[in-house]
Amino acid sequence: MNHNYLMCLSYDGTRYSGWQKQGNTPNTIQGKLEAALFSILSETTEVQGSGRTDAGVHAEGQTANFHCHSDLPKEELLRRLREAIPEDIGVLSLEEVDSRFHARLSAKQKTYTYTIWNTELPDVFARRYEWQIPERLDISAMQSCAEHFVGTHDFRSFCSNRNLKKSSVRTIYRLDVVQEGNRIRISATGNGFLYNMVRVIAQTLVDAGKGKLIPEEIDRMLSDPDRRTIAMAPAKGLCLKEVQYE
Amino acid sequence: MNHNYLMCLSYDGTRYSGWQKQGNTPNTIQGKLEAALFSILSETTEVQGSGRTDAGVHAEGQTANFHCHSDLPKEELLRRLREAIPEDIGVLSLEEVDSRFHARLSAKQKTYTYTIWNTELPDVFARRYEWQIPERLDISAMQSCAEHFVGTHDFRSFCSNRNLKKSSVRTIYRLDVVQEGNRIRISATGNGFLYNMVRVIAQTLVDAGKGKLIPEEIDRMLSDPDRRTIAMAPAKGLCLKEVQYE
Repeated sequence: MNHNYLMCLSYDGTRYSGWQKQGNTPNTIQGKLEAALFSILSETTEVQGSGRTDAGVHAEGQTANFHCHSDLPKEELLRRLREAIPEDIGVLSLEEVDSRFHARLSAKQKTYTYTIWNTELPDVFARRYEWQIPERLDISAMQSCAEHFVGTHDFRSFCSNRNLKKSSVRTIYRLDVVQEGNRIRISATGNGFLYNMVRVIAQTLVDAGKGKLIPEEIDRMLSDPDRRTIAMAPAKGLCLKEVQYE
Repeated sequence: MNHNYLMCLSYDGTRYSGWQKQGNTPNTIQGKLEAALFSILSETTEVQGSGRTDAGVHAEGQTANFHCHSDLPKEELLRRLREAIPEDIGVLSLEEVDSRFHARLSAKQKTYTYTIWNTELPDVFARRYEWQIPERLDISAMQSCAEHFVGTHDFRSFCSNRNLKKSSVRTIYRLDVVQEGNRIRISATGNGFLYNMVRVIAQTLVDAGKGKLIPEEIDRMLSDPDRRTIAMAPAKGLCLKEVQYE
């Protein structure tokens, strides 16, 4: 019988070349999951993620689905999968879904977080999961800028892929900048994000926090989508937090 | 001029052979700090920790002092030290102290935490800093047992060094077991701890949480110090939280 399984995944992306399997690059999250499933099921599966994450990017709530023929009970499959994958990839849950469900095509919205450690103090335990910026950022300037991103816009200026063939119009539902002690967390929820878009937005908000940019410049970049910005925040501060379906 | 500096340190102990420099073992926290100081000051210093931590044990608030002759300003020394040490060791603060101050001999009390991740769910981001125990532990049984450790006792039964020459009497001021979601945090404050004592106590509390041990057995082990227990919780869950001075 054909089963379609949806997994919710967390991973520490530090030592991976990103989500997507690419030719001979051995260290990808998708590659590790497919290899583990092959070792358990003895059949080839294609693990379809909700989207790619880049090298060094983390996930607390990535989703992915795969089809298989095995009738191994779900609990047993989950247990063996947890044993078979490296300890920096975690399978949070496994559930059987409708055969038409597709982790990427069925996704309705996604939330990413970008974490900044805003002090000169070292943070040895979370150093792989945040970008350290010693100089104090102006949070209210960042928050004022963030509001200007919310809504439906052509985000081409905030994408590092210069040869976009498909539409670069996306809707951002929320873009929050929250301070928790020395930590600043940027949280972005939208119906989809272009390549590197969250990292370019995070860099733009940091520039605003340093007083290098005023909110009106965001509006100008959004209304003239060819004013490309290239600078982007480092991968390690980015985390795919949640993918939502209907 | 002779200066005596006190450092407060954090470290991710995962890749180290512990605090103490030992012959040719290159990877020790003390060794890394002394090498960094030599590269900055061009003089040999001995970095004296408040105590040793074992291989794989972490610190959020280790303290250590060293004497030097250099008149390099304190802020400059701190800045260069942070640059010179590996990123899994953090110098939180540096302050000049009285020449008689000694990080170990002047210490009045220490607090260690031991962290348990009590679920079968993976926790990829904190996996190096906690002990995963999938089966549910009985927190109130652990708390009842913990109370029996508080006070002044001969803790020889809870030490993995079988050839103790000095006194094995110590005072535990507090031993708390706190649940935070799936995380259980054991926090121990005392005037000092024997070799591996916190890890043996953590293992004993876990046994209590599994229903394998009743509180009265703790009393028996404390009153008959030769009833040795050897099992101990893994190093990675242990963290030296704070060292207090007068």
